[in-house]
Amino acid sequence: MNEKDKVTIYDISEKLNISAATVSRALNDNPKISIKTKELVLKTAAAMNYKQNRLAQALKSGKTNNVGVIVPYIDRNFFSSVIRGIEEELSPHGYHVIICQSHEDVTNEITQINTLLNTQIDGIFMSISKTTQDTSHIQKVLQEKTPLIFFDRKKDLPGFSSVTIDDFNGGFSATEHLINQGCTKIVHFSGDLNLDIYKNRCDGYMAALKKHGLPIRKEYIIQVNSKIESGASAISELWELEDKPDAIFSAGDYAALGAIQELKRRKVRIPEDVCVVGFSNEPFTKYMELPMSSVDQTPLEMGKIAAQVFLEQVKGKQTLTIEKKVVLTPELCIRDSSNRIGKAIPTVA
Amino acid sequence: MNEKDKVTIYDISEKLNISAATVSRALNDNPKISIKTKELVLKTAAAMNYKQNRLAQALKSGKTNNVGVIVPYIDRNFFSSVIRGIEEELSPHGYHVIICQSHEDVTNEITQINTLLNTQIDGIFMSISKTTQDTSHIQKVLQEKTPLIFFDRKKDLPGFSSVTIDDFNGGFSATEHLINQGCTKIVHFSGDLNLDIYKNRCDGYMAALKKHGLPIRKEYIIQVNSKIESGASAISELWELEDKPDAIFSAGDYAALGAIQELKRRKVRIPEDVCVVGFSNEPFTKYMELPMSSVDQTPLEMGKIAAQVFLEQVKGKQTLTIEKKVVLTPELCIRDSSNRIGKAIPTVA
Repeated sequence: MNEKDKVTIYDISEKLNISAATVSRALNDNPKISIKTKELVLKTAAAMNYKQNRLAQALKSGKTNNVGVIVPYIDRNFFSSVIRGIEEELSPHGYHVIICQSHEDVTNEITQINTLLNTQIDGIFMSISKTTQDTSHIQKVLQEKTPLIFFDRKKDLPGFSSVTIDDFNGGFSATEHLINQGCTKIVHFSGDLNLDIYKNRCDGYMAALKKHGLPIRKEYIIQVNSKIESGASAISELWELEDKPDAIFSAGDYAALGAIQELKRRKVRIPEDVCVVGFSNEPFTKYMELPMSSVDQTPLEMGKIAAQVFLEQVKGKQTLTIEKKVVLTPELCIRDSSNRIGKAIPTVA
Repeated sequence: MNEKDKVTIYDISEKLNISAATVSRALNDNPKISIKTKELVLKTAAAMNYKQNRLAQALKSGKTNNVGVIVPYIDRNFFSSVIRGIEEELSPHGYHVIICQSHEDVTNEITQINTLLNTQIDGIFMSISKTTQDTSHIQKVLQEKTPLIFFDRKKDLPGFSSVTIDDFNGGFSATEHLINQGCTKIVHFSGDLNLDIYKNRCDGYMAALKKHGLPIRKEYIIQVNSKIESGASAISELWELEDKPDAIFSAGDYAALGAIQELKRRKVRIPEDVCVVGFSNEPFTKYMELPMSSVDQTPLEMGKIAAQVFLEQVKGKQTLTIEKKVVLTPELCIRDSSNRIGKAIPTVA
């Protein structure tokens, strides 16, 4: 349908000669609006083909049609894309999404869960913060019979569904790709290994080395954060070594970007001397002077599937018994930063 | 549960051997209480199944310590940076931020304002959607005596404060910079001219042409959207012309990126044949093969100032009488895509 043809509440308001706010309230089943008006608005909206699914939802009672999403940060493409996936899937069902950022701080997470529960949210989607150890605030959601679906970063707790990617596979395939390019001294920039996602990427890295008979060297595993600077300083550290690496597999794109910047400064050729692969497939990776290989976590799909799991739970009215674990396979996007052989390998844009 | 059995802050205070006032402050996220104590209190309260009656609390103090932010999209660096600025400024004052995306749809905006008002939010920060014409939902916020501060995209309504940038200045200085590079046939990719920000950028462009005695040519003003593809197809359209342009000033970075990609495909040299300047200073602009000039809207500062305006209003308890209009000056970041003369002009990273 053309954007212009879309029926809005203003069209309904004009047709009925009542305010748009009244139409909106009626559609949202606001108690301030009389049943008579509600009926009139709903009938007119239906006749004008106004967002059918939202209508169906509005007719149901006992629901706010709001869901909450808690993410560490919104300004990472991965998280904003998951949110987009959730919205695209839930919007036709009349749901609205409220977003909170934990900034990797468990105290924020606790307050946000309380706030969301107090606003009578219909469900919560959550990717836990790096500092979350104790899970009593998460258990509380279960006690309140509100569905909570983890995505990406989760806690293994009974009663909760989750949608994650196979991070082991992501780490394994990125490392094996580097080995296939002829690299033998492969460094891993790891994230915080207390977090499952980063531990699994590191395990995948080590498994690929092992499979191909390459040694696992402690000095080649460096913990970085998600800042550009941490990648640059890791390179400075590594270039002090006698035996310099010939590849970097970074658990994050920003540290990989910092590594590339520092390698260039040192006149190290990429990919001839050192191949680099990142993780997350942030949009900047493909616009770089030297487009960077990265592991795509299929965030849009992740969000859509998380939303589908939620809809199943709500539909089944068995919010406490459904516990679904979905694991997606990440996609390695090979670009110039690690394409030594120069084969025409299909890459995901 | 029996009223008598209800866990109170006194039970928590006894258990932890700290004062009830401290427990209360910790539960209300008072900045005077250390994060360590807050965490301890929150965990103990959760373990004891303490239920804070948030609404009662809010009625007592008249505050929930939650503010809402409504933006068109969170996955644009500009908006996520403004939100970060708001959070950085409000967090030390004990406020939490709830975020909603309108997706440029006024019906979402209406529902979100209703949701936020229903959760007894202390204030709303908002950048209006492209489709917002009627403002009754915004007026409603004023009626409910909740402060609403516009940022970037605003409606000129009495009683509302706003923090914006001088878009005219941004358009003027970008265009004048192109003229200084020797360009005389400058195209403008405009956004939706119904939105003040885009109209002002276009006015700035025309004023610079006029000042330097250059003609304003209708066929050189092309409306694009914020997608890469729209910039590419605008170039295809322009290259049908007899008189091809020698510069592009785009009101958005994504359309400028699309233009650069299409110009390269056509073997047009940048900046020798055509100079390109974008708007927003998205992070990808500086990592591009050819780093792109762009106008920085100082979003972090915008968010911080919007938060300061809010704090003034709340502090003054005169939410209805304060009406503050702050206008920030944007910063032109000159990079390779428009640096023909090759002067060492200081650029903002």
